[in-house]
Amino acid sequence: MAVWGAPQPAHITFHALYSLQHRGQESAGIAVCGRDGKMERHAAMGLVPNVFDAETLDALDAVYDSAPGSAIGHNRYSTTGSSEQENTQPFVGYTAGGAVALAHNGNIVNAKRLRHELEGDGRVFTSTTDTEVVLQLLARANTEPDALAWTLSQLEGAFSLVFLFSDRVELARDPYGWRPLVLGRFPDGGWVGASETVALDAIGAEFVREVEPGEIVTIDDSGLASRRFDEPVTPAHCVFEHVYFASPASRVFGSTVQLVRERLGERIAEENPVDADLVTPMPDSGRSAATGYARVSGLPYREAIIPNRYVGRTFIKPTTGERAAAVRLKLNVVAEIVEGQRIVVVDDSIVRGTTTRLKMAQLRKAGAKEIHLRISCPPIHHPCYFGVDFPDRKELIATDRTTQEIAALLGVDSVAYLSIEGLHEVVGTPEVPGDHYCDACFSGRYPITIEGELRKDALTKHC
Amino acid sequence: MAVWGAPQPAHITFHALYSLQHRGQESAGIAVCGRDGKMERHAAMGLVPNVFDAETLDALDAVYDSAPGSAIGHNRYSTTGSSEQENTQPFVGYTAGGAVALAHNGNIVNAKRLRHELEGDGRVFTSTTDTEVVLQLLARANTEPDALAWTLSQLEGAFSLVFLFSDRVELARDPYGWRPLVLGRFPDGGWVGASETVALDAIGAEFVREVEPGEIVTIDDSGLASRRFDEPVTPAHCVFEHVYFASPASRVFGSTVQLVRERLGERIAEENPVDADLVTPMPDSGRSAATGYARVSGLPYREAIIPNRYVGRTFIKPTTGERAAAVRLKLNVVAEIVEGQRIVVVDDSIVRGTTTRLKMAQLRKAGAKEIHLRISCPPIHHPCYFGVDFPDRKELIATDRTTQEIAALLGVDSVAYLSIEGLHEVVGTPEVPGDHYCDACFSGRYPITIEGELRKDALTKHC
Amino acid sequence: MAVWGAPQPAHITFHALYSLQHRGQESAGIAVCGRDGKMERHAAMGLVPNVFDAETLDALDAVYDSAPGSAIGHNRYSTTGSSEQENTQPFVGYTAGGAVALAHNGNIVNAKRLRHELEGDGRVFTSTTDTEVVLQLLARANTEPDALAWTLSQLEGAFSLVFLFSDRVELARDPYGWRPLVLGRFPDGGWVGASETVALDAIGAEFVREVEPGEIVTIDDSGLASRRFDEPVTPAHCVFEHVYFASPASRVFGSTVQLVRERLGERIAEENPVDADLVTPMPDSGRSAATGYARVSGLPYREAIIPNRYVGRTFIKPTTGERAAAVRLKLNVVAEIVEGQRIVVVDDSIVRGTTTRLKMAQLRKAGAKEIHLRISCPPIHHPCYFGVDFPDRKELIATDRTTQEIAALLGVDSVAYLSIEGLHEVVGTPEVPGDHYCDACFSGRYPITIEGELRKDALTKHC
Amino acid sequence: MAVWGAPQPAHITFHALYSLQHRGQESAGIAVCGRDGKMERHAAMGLVPNVFDAETLDALDAVYDSAPGSAIGHNRYSTTGSSEQENTQPFVGYTAGGAVALAHNGNIVNAKRLRHELEGDGRVFTSTTDTEVVLQLLARANTEPDALAWTLSQLEGAFSLVFLFSDRVELARDPYGWRPLVLGRFPDGGWVGASETVALDAIGAEFVREVEPGEIVTIDDSGLASRRFDEPVTPAHCVFEHVYFASPASRVFGSTVQLVRERLGERIAEENPVDADLVTPMPDSGRSAATGYARVSGLPYREAIIPNRYVGRTFIKPTTGERAAAVRLKLNVVAEIVEGQRIVVVDDSIVRGTTTRLKMAQLRKAGAKEIHLRISCPPIHHPCYFGVDFPDRKELIATDRTTQEIAALLGVDSVAYLSIEGLHEVVGTPEVPGDHYCDACFSGRYPITIEGELRKDALTKHC
Repeated sequence: MAVWGAPQPAHITFHALYSLQHRGQESAGIAVCGRDGKMERHAAMGLVPNVFDAETLDALDAVYDSAPGSAIGHNRYSTTGSSEQENTQPFVGYTAGGAVALAHNGNIVNAKRLRHELEGDGRVFTSTTDTEVVLQLLARANTEPDALAWTLSQLEGAFSLVFLFSDRVELARDPYGWRPLVLGRFPDGGWVGASETVALDAIGAEFVREVEPGEIVTIDDSGLASRRFDEPVTPAHCVFEHVYFASPASRVFGSTVQLVRERLGERIAEENPVDADLVTPMPDSGRSAATGYARVSGLPYREAIIPNRYVGRTFIKPTTGERAAAVRLKLNVVAEIVEGQRIVVVDDSIVRGTTTRLKMAQLRKAGAKEIHLRISCPPIHHPCYFGVDFPDRKELIATDRTTQEIAALLGVDSVAYLSIEGLHEVVGTPEVPGDHYCDACFSGRYPITIEGELRKDALTKHC
Repeated sequence: MAVWGAPQPAHITFHALYSLQHRGQESAGIAVCGRDGKMERHAAMGLVPNVFDAETLDALDAVYDSAPGSAIGHNRYSTTGSSEQENTQPFVGYTAGGAVALAHNGNIVNAKRLRHELEGDGRVFTSTTDTEVVLQLLARANTEPDALAWTLSQLEGAFSLVFLFSDRVELARDPYGWRPLVLGRFPDGGWVGASETVALDAIGAEFVREVEPGEIVTIDDSGLASRRFDEPVTPAHCVFEHVYFASPASRVFGSTVQLVRERLGERIAEENPVDADLVTPMPDSGRSAATGYARVSGLPYREAIIPNRYVGRTFIKPTTGERAAAVRLKLNVVAEIVEGQRIVVVDDSIVRGTTTRLKMAQLRKAGAKEIHLRISCPPIHHPCYFGVDFPDRKELIATDRTTQEIAALLGVDSVAYLSIEGLHEVVGTPEVPGDHYCDACFSGRYPITIEGELRKDALTKHC
Repeated sequence: MAVWGAPQPAHITFHALYSLQHRGQESAGIAVCGRDGKMERHAAMGLVPNVFDAETLDALDAVYDSAPGSAIGHNRYSTTGSSEQENTQPFVGYTAGGAVALAHNGNIVNAKRLRHELEGDGRVFTSTTDTEVVLQLLARANTEPDALAWTLSQLEGAFSLVFLFSDRVELARDPYGWRPLVLGRFPDGGWVGASETVALDAIGAEFVREVEPGEIVTIDDSGLASRRFDEPVTPAHCVFEHVYFASPASRVFGSTVQLVRERLGERIAEENPVDADLVTPMPDSGRSAATGYARVSGLPYREAIIPNRYVGRTFIKPTTGERAAAVRLKLNVVAEIVEGQRIVVVDDSIVRGTTTRLKMAQLRKAGAKEIHLRISCPPIHHPCYFGVDFPDRKELIATDRTTQEIAALLGVDSVAYLSIEGLHEVVGTPEVPGDHYCDACFSGRYPITIEGELRKDALTKHC
Repeated sequence: MAVWGAPQPAHITFHALYSLQHRGQESAGIAVCGRDGKMERHAAMGLVPNVFDAETLDALDAVYDSAPGSAIGHNRYSTTGSSEQENTQPFVGYTAGGAVALAHNGNIVNAKRLRHELEGDGRVFTSTTDTEVVLQLLARANTEPDALAWTLSQLEGAFSLVFLFSDRVELARDPYGWRPLVLGRFPDGGWVGASETVALDAIGAEFVREVEPGEIVTIDDSGLASRRFDEPVTPAHCVFEHVYFASPASRVFGSTVQLVRERLGERIAEENPVDADLVTPMPDSGRSAATGYARVSGLPYREAIIPNRYVGRTFIKPTTGERAAAVRLKLNVVAEIVEGQRIVVVDDSIVRGTTTRLKMAQLRKAGAKEIHLRISCPPIHHPCYFGVDFPDRKELIATDRTTQEIAALLGVDSVAYLSIEGLHEVVGTPEVPGDHYCDACFSGRYPITIEGELRKDALTKHC
């Protein structure tokens, strides 16, 4: 998330981060940098509204004395580097070229090797993030004609990056375009870069275009400039953004997420029809697909599972009895709707299946005659090395199980997943065909070669 | 909320309060009382999970040394008495008969007069709640044969009360039955009283029956006993519980709220059909009614307005720009769904209309061709003296305005409310006919005479 | 602590409470009351600067709109009533006569009996303090010609009380004058009542006179008025105020505490001389007496025990190893001063002796040849029912032990206490002779009859 | 502060830091490192007991699984680098050689130049401390035969450093020995390095010797080893450690601080006698010298100024009226002692003189006939570049003023400072003669050449 040339850039960034909270809830941070080179940063563990208050934002914006300024911000969702204060972003460093702050979305798969090289060259790291690798490379590249382009060309994996310097903001995206990164403009002047279009909507900016895979966009006093740091390749956009990660209100990779999700629901209804009395969504994740399923199937759409809006945002450990208590708090079933009925339950995805099982038991206990679970994506079988933090293979419910076995485990009458072909057809458009998406978590087909097993703590503490 | 005869009663009460959080977010509290008469209470401003942690709950339950015990709890939604620590509930007092704690849901309309009498009799109040009036009456009634029945017979207005003594729990409900109060039982023994059946579901208790209007239920070592403190009258259940207040997953006054809300949506579709392309709910409040509306109208049900799940639970003041910024954060519109479409937007109710107006403007800006707002209850015209905290008449959007004027104000093509007759027919059942409901906020027909204007601070600070 | 007729009375009270922090560290509170009868209070567990910040004080003072106003405040040192939020003071109640706040210093020995009478009369208590007993009596006295005088005449024991009403402040002191209470005046107008003269110094007020034992002082718009509520008796001022409790900078009962403490040190030197090389104080409590001891004995005064100024104000539990670790942190010995020397260590009093023993061991370890402990008061043998919270008899080091046994226990060569006669002679002045002091903790001679054993929790939770 | 080979090293370090709190109150931190190379650190703004609790310390010690382990700790007193979370110490970095943590006491005068060289070499800094300069040098020195010795030889200025590696602890001190650093041993095995001997006393360790100027001490499994990194020079121990900085209970540079301070008081009495009635210390700073002054002068030693023990540890801003209010809270004068008397007030030093002036006014107001201020060190005229954070020259009271002018400014009858010769004679011993001390703040004679003006923020934020 980056802002250039707008008044109160820290306040703007705060609003944008708030609208992007779904992309990361571990920590949040904002950095600003005055023309005199004074960098200020505030970052902490927790949700955006808990990390920032008006006083903190005012202090950051004070760097610009009411004039238009720039800022970058970050919501952290831990993939590489453990969860700690020193891993919060934006990451700030001081180099011969001045102070620089950067925020990173994605996962750099050759970070460990790069780090070892840099350490071997007599360098010191002060965090365990792959983000610091980018910064140290950038500093070392000070003799290159285009230090940033050179730096980015060394990186492998998924990265959408925003850099803040005293005199410019730079945005870059990896050649495969794994993670989204869009460019917006304020009606009254000023630019913004953000992961999703909802952030533009939240701050009143207009969508301009995506930052292209392999592109660096530089915004400074002379306006916007673009250059490439790498040769074009066939894109590999993360299809899980459409399935689960992005906001339904965003346009991502050229398609509106909510429409994609409705179509995914329609498609699973076409692929896996079932004779039933009603369709109900798993709240809130299955709602978009469930309306699509209802439309195609002609079954009535009814909300039989009621979420407790106050649970889930606040951490509550199951203190008495088992985990089922927490699920009972989180969801209630309307018995009168499900009693004696054949029900289709729609959800967007299923990872471990632990809580799904408990929810299905609640439906059964409330009198459901038949339960047919429909998942609007294929089964998850493989790790993601590009920014989604799935659990280990052995914890994934689909590992080494047939759908019949999964249905038995979940206590439902049938389970059906969307086919990979169906997924491709739904997300594909003339501009962004289905094979421009990365579906490695479903198919195991990785767009690039992965060296060895990459783990969350690949870079962590050693001495 | 009351528990009797169950292990870890404070933990149980915590879970129940959590499931009832929608009934009050101002403060929360739990009281326990050992057989030796030792009363312990923990209460504070804030949401249930912020007020209690495992340590606090363990300390409360420690009173019972792992044996079954009793507890009462409360979520405060401020009607009488200002918002302060000393007004948190349960309210605890020490009398000649021992310690007593009580929790109150409702509003006692003759509290001010009763308080003046008690003060005139040389008594001291230490809070500004009507709850303390109940306690002081109870203490003064120590020479009455049935002190509690006598006390309750002095009260006018809406009250669902739970009392905790060292040797018993007592539950009572006003003769009109304004507020709900249900009785449940644990499979392994032990009783529970709660405002709604979702609380029973949350803690694994089974629904037994409602506490009747005008009834006192006593639970002690000899089991459950019942007596009346007043003559039966025609009930006046709060219809707004069905419209807005209660959880959709609860049974209230004999009907399941979610079904009632779906039927309210169907009814408004029957009463006010409109030629349109799709139906969309105002999230999350209009969803139940919108599915009903879609079913009757035959229009497709699509979710065009996307709520930010992280906003609204945490307090955020609009710091930059106007209030619209906060609304933009809270909701996003999926432009591809609304563009060029004639849209029916369904919501459960409309009070001031301030945020509705901003949301309608967002829809319009996203390209909606026509917007038809359908409200699944009648217009709110009158104050509630029985526990719902509406703003002043002059702030209500329906005050002195026709629906055309309201539509103009909100910037929509049409607004239609449900008729009062329609409301009665929907909520009415053979057991609880429509005229057993209080609809004074819509009709102005108050079941009892109200002396003067009662305001929120009627009992507040004077010296 | 009370202020009348001064601008920003809450800020003033805050400063006064800060200067009186030594009198109670458990909780602090301030109440203000507008002429319109609006009472506001802020109180919480903890030290004065932690309980209040500028914002809180401003909010309290806002009641007066920059005009001169009134306030009362309190530092709580727990004697009756357990340590809890609901026992913080000032205590606020609402009566037929309006709101009233009161703050109490002392201990009412017949509170339990009075409370039972009031409860038997159908009254409810909401705390476990003897302070609420005073308030309830006052409310019940509403038919008496002088309700306050009647109320005070019912109380037995030690009480210095300040009352805040919307139109006046009243100050009262028990007939024996156990606890101090002084009256001051601001140069620019306005009155102040406080426990000690240091509070007057802290806020720039001038000492006027003491509130007399058995006197009520009323301050209102017509100025200051005085009346008695009880017959004069021989005073029984608490001698422990001079020995330990009051600030050395205060005048208490007509004498300056620091001078009294120096004279107590001189007297113990006269009563118990010893051949030694130097005198050193136990910091910081023994310093005043040690300078007196040095003066009379002619021995050099040197500081051999160095306190850690950062320990002791913050709570630290001994986490590793034994309690000795905490003492080592708290005090360090200058070995070069004590090595091979015969040392007189002077302290003001000794209660349990636990930490003294550890300190003496440190001195011995550092090479002290002889240690002679001199205590500038007599041994404590009896409980105090009038506001000082000594531990149980069995925990007092002097219980059933000779001074030789105490010396052996403490590991010193000799221990000597001041004689009771010496104490009387030192504190006695022509105006306030020695026998106008209560020395019951030393002598067991209680000025009034005590019914049964009074314990800290005499009024606590029962039900 | 460093511990090697002792169980619960984090707990030990906590106790040591607590005893050294007087050396820095801005932030505190502890680092531990397991043999497997896992470095853990906890550091935060605030006082030691607020930064750490038992849980945090247990978590750090858990690295060692109850076996003996190592830890380093730091109390930060800001000289270089602004006051922020990212400047807390110990500073942790990851290099090719593994993780390393270091804690620094002192000030490196060529840090800016070194940093520019390192940045120019393509390196990134993530803080604004001179401590990071040491770490980056150490990493770059990875091809040197003795990387640490080489690194230290590059540094100019004052530094006492402790390093923690997974397999050893190293301690080093600059060739001039500006700051103290002592070595201790636990009776049961294990080593400790600390700034002052009070830390050894606090944790039950025995003093072994000082780390020599220019020495590196390495402690690992094979025991203790020593080497030099630089040629011996004439030491320049900071004389202000004796005057003000160190604990009176410590031995520093071979002398016990308390004895030195008593002798400084004796010496100023010899150099500047005055006809007076009594001597009183400025609490608590002047107490040691005042007893010495009293001894030599024969005047009675009395404590006329009473500190409020609860003020000063907690931050309180003057909210009403002027700064005088805060001083009145902090100190009270015993009028009966000073009234009509000729008083000698002794303090250890005087920097700005702002609060001294207010205190003198209080003494005068209380009736002092004559006030003679005696300062047991020479006037401060020059900045310190070696770790003491004096204000700018223009804020120093002694700048461009005679003692008569200072007396007039402070409102006293006379002011006298100790002579530089007197200071040298008092601190000098046969082992450490007076000219082995740095007295640059008094004399302007800097032991090394200082390039340009060094300011607190010399290294701070630029971009």
